Amino acid sequence: MRTMARPTLKDIAARAGVSVSTVSYALNEQSTMPLSDATKATIRRIAREIGYVPNGLARSLQARSSQTIGFLLDKPVSTPRYAAIVQGMISGLAERGFSLSLLNKAPASQWVDAVRGYRLDGLVFIGHDDHEVPTELAEPVAEHGIPFVALDCGAYEEERPYSTVDFDYGTGVEIVLAELERRGIRIVYYVRPELVSRSERIRERAVIDGLSRRPHMALRVVNTGITTERLRDFDTHKEDMASYPVELAQRVERTLREDGADPSVTALVCSWGADVEPVFSTARRRDDRFTIGSLAAGILSPALWPNLVYSRLPLDEAGRECARLIVAETESPDAHEHLLLPPALDAAS
Amino acid sequence: MRTMARPTLKDIAARAGVSVSTVSYALNEQSTMPLSDATKATIRRIAREIGYVPNGLARSLQARSSQTIGFLLDKPVSTPRYAAIVQGMISGLAERGFSLSLLNKAPASQWVDAVRGYRLDGLVFIGHDDHEVPTELAEPVAEHGIPFVALDCGAYEEERPYSTVDFDYGTGVEIVLAELERRGIRIVYYVRPELVSRSERIRERAVIDGLSRRPHMALRVVNTGITTERLRDFDTHKEDMASYPVELAQRVERTLREDGADPSVTALVCSWGADVEPVFSTARRRDDRFTIGSLAAGILSPALWPNLVYSRLPLDEAGRECARLIVAETESPDAHEHLLLPPALDAAS
Repeated sequence: MRTMARPTLKDIAARAGVSVSTVSYALNEQSTMPLSDATKATIRRIAREIGYVPNGLARSLQARSSQTIGFLLDKPVSTPRYAAIVQGMISGLAERGFSLSLLNKAPASQWVDAVRGYRLDGLVFIGHDDHEVPTELAEPVAEHGIPFVALDCGAYEEERPYSTVDFDYGTGVEIVLAELERRGIRIVYYVRPELVSRSERIRERAVIDGLSRRPHMALRVVNTGITTERLRDFDTHKEDMASYPVELAQRVERTLREDGADPSVTALVCSWGADVEPVFSTARRRDDRFTIGSLAAGILSPALWPNLVYSRLPLDEAGRECARLIVAETESPDAHEHLLLPPALDAAS
Repeated sequence: MRTMARPTLKDIAARAGVSVSTVSYALNEQSTMPLSDATKATIRRIAREIGYVPNGLARSLQARSSQTIGFLLDKPVSTPRYAAIVQGMISGLAERGFSLSLLNKAPASQWVDAVRGYRLDGLVFIGHDDHEVPTELAEPVAEHGIPFVALDCGAYEEERPYSTVDFDYGTGVEIVLAELERRGIRIVYYVRPELVSRSERIRERAVIDGLSRRPHMALRVVNTGITTERLRDFDTHKEDMASYPVELAQRVERTLREDGADPSVTALVCSWGADVEPVFSTARRRDDRFTIGSLAAGILSPALWPNLVYSRLPLDEAGRECARLIVAETESPDAHEHLLLPPALDAAS
């Protein structure tokens, strides 16, 4: 282990001609030991001059707090929507004097122990596709009263012993359908994975409900070919993940060709943001009047492409709320809140 | 401060009928205190049964290491190319038993003190546009021998008292020009900011050198309107940053209209990855045969759009190398390495 040149309390004591404990009292703002203002000032000046830095770990040990929150990811942080969430969380935590540690690919129990051993003050967990918090995390969190926030885990149906932040996917669907109706769309191709996930079910129901109230708009379903099994295998079969967008583009191309859909009244609405680019590239190649919708934004910008209609998740806000809630959780064991954040429309007016 | 139910050494001692120091010796793998194997086994079993977790901060204090590396960002982590770097760094650090703490919007001196006070083991700094490491960071790093790695700071011209990881932008330009030549391109619109930065100068020189060796390919320069001053003001004028892509699209549209360029032999090559989408959207609207090049990738995928020709920076590799180098820096004060990573071609074949 490398050692840095680092002045100690002893060095200050020698220069000031006082004892090490006097130096310690003088540098500790909380100390109640009576010392003359002159002595304190001299000691603090010497500390500054020789570049003394207090031992942060010793201070953390005293406070039983590392002022650090762990963020548990079960997919790479390079997953597009994660970055905005992480940025919101960093900003929200920095305002409260906390840092963010990114943790992944580890058994969850390790990070529970890190909180119980004071190396982390709390954990924020982000699920995907609205899956529940895994049992190996939920159980010790409840048992030990670990400060914990679950993001996008669909935990808003019942009370939990931690805070939750979720997205109101149903409202997001309604926003997109209303905009498509305003634009005179009469056929909606619903491009969706065959996943058994809570958020997919919510979106499916909202699409069907929304179109049942709009009988002049017809529904066609396009399966993307993603199943729960295939999605799980993506982690081990990177080549399948890489070829999937091209495969989806071909599926959509086939459907549009066979149907001969009228591009001026047809919208392709993606349940997944990641599907927007393949669907968009295919539709544009056929005809640039097709409208492309997304229930979870996408990487292309509606400011540049007027035929994009997005429901955009409030990712930065979600990150900031996680920061606020996890800090509240560290301060009070009963601070649980359950937030449901509505998406917003993002489309050229 | 919330307190968790947490068994202590005392609880174990009471159950085992031994002293607290015996428990401490038994649970410390490094302890040389002679204890019978039976006593050790009993104490460890009780510790497991009552869910004892060692105080991680106390262990860190003893080791003078938090096993945490700080990543200093001077732009939001949601900047697209940062996410892949962060992911590479998390993976590389996890393999070595370290975590990553994301730090930004703070005076750099605060994080230098965090390393000197053992709350962080080292710092990785990512610049932007190949700018130097700021003096307020470079000086204390050199003075105190702080474990430090600078990424994309263009520090490879002379020896530094820390490790550096940089991208070989010149090679990236040559890769793109060679591919454009192969595709029969005869006019290259070079879309570039008017920035005074080292990486811009390297790319400019490489474009001019590369085209001087290809006299059948003509160069046209399109300024994007980004200057050093304007880029700095983006932080405070979010609305200017939001309108910039639309403004760039209009500039490109005007140039293409006035020039009447032949789309089948014309490429628009962006110096910045962020400029690809506005340039692409404009060119496609005019004619979908235009070729779009990028010297720093972009968010659109060449697998879906055959007329995209990218030089792609090895971001994941850069993150992994930073992880390897910063851990080496914490182990040895003379472990400095200086890496120059070459980009790769990303284009449909």
